[in-house]
Amino acid sequence: MTSASLELAQTLDAKDDLAPIRALFECPDDTIYMDANSVGPMPKAVRGKAKGLLDDWVHLRRRGWSQRQWLEMPSLLGDCIAPLIGAAPGTVVMSDSTTLNQFKAVTHALALRPDRKVVLTQNGNFPTDVHVLQGIAKVSGGRVTIRFVDSEDEAIAALVAGVAVAALSHVDYRSGERWDMAKVTAAAHRHGALAVWDLSHSAGAVPVDVGLADADLAIGCGYKYLCTGPGGPAYIYLKPGLGDDVWPTLAGWMGHADVFAFARDFAPHPGVKKFLTGTPLVGADELASAILDVWPRVEPAKLWAKHRSLTDFLIAALRQECGSLGVTVNSPDDHARRGGNVSFSSPGAGSVVEALIDAGVISSFRKPDAIRFGVSPLVIRHVDCWTAVQRLRRILAERIWQLPKYEKVSV
Amino acid sequence: MTSASLELAQTLDAKDDLAPIRALFECPDDTIYMDANSVGPMPKAVRGKAKGLLDDWVHLRRRGWSQRQWLEMPSLLGDCIAPLIGAAPGTVVMSDSTTLNQFKAVTHALALRPDRKVVLTQNGNFPTDVHVLQGIAKVSGGRVTIRFVDSEDEAIAALVAGVAVAALSHVDYRSGERWDMAKVTAAAHRHGALAVWDLSHSAGAVPVDVGLADADLAIGCGYKYLCTGPGGPAYIYLKPGLGDDVWPTLAGWMGHADVFAFARDFAPHPGVKKFLTGTPLVGADELASAILDVWPRVEPAKLWAKHRSLTDFLIAALRQECGSLGVTVNSPDDHARRGGNVSFSSPGAGSVVEALIDAGVISSFRKPDAIRFGVSPLVIRHVDCWTAVQRLRRILAERIWQLPKYEKVSV
Repeated sequence: MTSASLELAQTLDAKDDLAPIRALFECPDDTIYMDANSVGPMPKAVRGKAKGLLDDWVHLRRRGWSQRQWLEMPSLLGDCIAPLIGAAPGTVVMSDSTTLNQFKAVTHALALRPDRKVVLTQNGNFPTDVHVLQGIAKVSGGRVTIRFVDSEDEAIAALVAGVAVAALSHVDYRSGERWDMAKVTAAAHRHGALAVWDLSHSAGAVPVDVGLADADLAIGCGYKYLCTGPGGPAYIYLKPGLGDDVWPTLAGWMGHADVFAFARDFAPHPGVKKFLTGTPLVGADELASAILDVWPRVEPAKLWAKHRSLTDFLIAALRQECGSLGVTVNSPDDHARRGGNVSFSSPGAGSVVEALIDAGVISSFRKPDAIRFGVSPLVIRHVDCWTAVQRLRRILAERIWQLPKYEKVSV
Repeated sequence: MTSASLELAQTLDAKDDLAPIRALFECPDDTIYMDANSVGPMPKAVRGKAKGLLDDWVHLRRRGWSQRQWLEMPSLLGDCIAPLIGAAPGTVVMSDSTTLNQFKAVTHALALRPDRKVVLTQNGNFPTDVHVLQGIAKVSGGRVTIRFVDSEDEAIAALVAGVAVAALSHVDYRSGERWDMAKVTAAAHRHGALAVWDLSHSAGAVPVDVGLADADLAIGCGYKYLCTGPGGPAYIYLKPGLGDDVWPTLAGWMGHADVFAFARDFAPHPGVKKFLTGTPLVGADELASAILDVWPRVEPAKLWAKHRSLTDFLIAALRQECGSLGVTVNSPDDHARRGGNVSFSSPGAGSVVEALIDAGVISSFRKPDAIRFGVSPLVIRHVDCWTAVQRLRRILAERIWQLPKYEKVSV
């Protein structure tokens, strides 16, 4: 790349095929949001969806169950985001939280490997992903144990006979490092294990292909890059044909083979729908349903290419403009190894993030010294990256963490 | 009761202490909603909550987690509805669905009775409550079995040593029959079992007192009488001090003893908060939060007295006006035995429910011949009951299920 500059940013933006997508979102003029890793931008269509939902609540009440798509929404949303993770139609549903979907996925994988007891995961996996495994292990009374690994190589080496499930995050939520899903899944399968992937920090930003990687199950957060709204519904993917006769651990009426029969006895729906549990949280789903007007207009390959261009530019700009002020980039240089955000270490990171907010740049801080710029390719432009880096540079040059106003947040 | 009449209805409404509460809800003039058993009325405050949520989504994004009460909402909502079920502050949280809370409650009870294997429930329990038990039994590989009972007497007789948990619905969702929670719970405790109650069809309409009954756990639907919106969050209650050292089966970061520590290893929060799992579904919670402006203005004893008055009047009117046209009341005469709705059998019930909708009265139909008039004491008036019965009478007199328009829905 030639030197990063405002002119280069403008040139890259002018060539951006996805630029019109930004107009589908409410983007305040005075702020650059680089926090896509928690609460993605809001589609403009959400306001109409909210009004429709409230009017239906008042006027339809229970008739909404039959006259609106409240019960179908988990499948409609799942089909909407399926292309972003390389999944076929009908293999993804959106509902519940990432935590609950991790439980569903891992217990299902364990049920498919009843003679094995080890679940492999990352030491640095997102806490709730690990908590779910620890809960499963605790309740199993010793049948299930957890093995922690720190790197992809270590994971592959640890995938020996006896491992039931590799339950891994595709992208490290702190460093932004992306694992090779196909390679690790193949290693799991070589030893008879199943692979469950958490795509929270990759899907909707960087290439994901559960089909090509032959992943067995996958889960992920909806409210980051996928824009389902604050705490919006998460999703789960099940490889077609995998364990259709195996019951879900969380058996509920929405996962029944015949939901409307109101039968006393449970029978699992074939495929991923077995993982639907209780009544859909319609309020959350209807707000999320604005993505049905967004993602079908986005070609995944173009999305990923834009993310690469944005983050390549951002990393170059960070090094060029802020390297001498103490910034070091944590995210890998190779885009194939990067997730949705760009992570860098900075002096006074906690204070710097606060000062950036005051300067109109929203990012996130992770202890001890990491700042993450989340790059949502739907709305972020190269000029936004350039402007953010210039504001960061000014803050660093002022050694702002030594000012009384910011001192206390320098953790 | 003297004869049911419009005049009597008006007299009773004039004496109603809770009449002003109706003005807190959007109630369309042209419709009488007797469907409180699925999607209760919408508080007017919901529109403001929705706007606030969307503005926060656009402008605060991730900062909503710290600047709004998104993470506290499950506890705030739980405390709001606690008085309606006789629970102390801090013993109820609202989140997830009834199905998921049934799973949490029953697996927790089983963990507290590791040497017992039987879960007792009603044959006619709501299907998803049973499905959850069947899922638990299936996954247990034979450790857990289910025993079905058909009546309160049969349940008490079946509560012998060996039963781990009685997982029962307080009110039958079809007949509206209410069980004696204190009596059955005492029987469970005499034999060392725990009692888990589903309050979906009682809480918010008729007297519930988990404290007085010494119930161990309770769960319930939020979107019926509690007015949390379509598919809105459900709730779970845990008796204080019961198994604080026992992990939840669904261990997630929101149930951690120190949520903000971001620790790798799970440690359960004491009390009911251990049952929080993943990120709250903020969209659903914020819409539900309108009840924070409603329930604190409602004295539970007055609510229950009004429900009794409404349903006594409704039953009398049904018999007096429609008895000769084939209507027989299924709900018990004794209010202490009734739940939120009044159930009656009717000729052509499916068609009659459709014809009632066309006449502006929304109720619900359950095979083979039951019609349920849900009576939400927050908004239903005695005059509404009278008008609904008069419209029903006209429909029955016209034998409307024999008309081609309605014939096909006469199941």
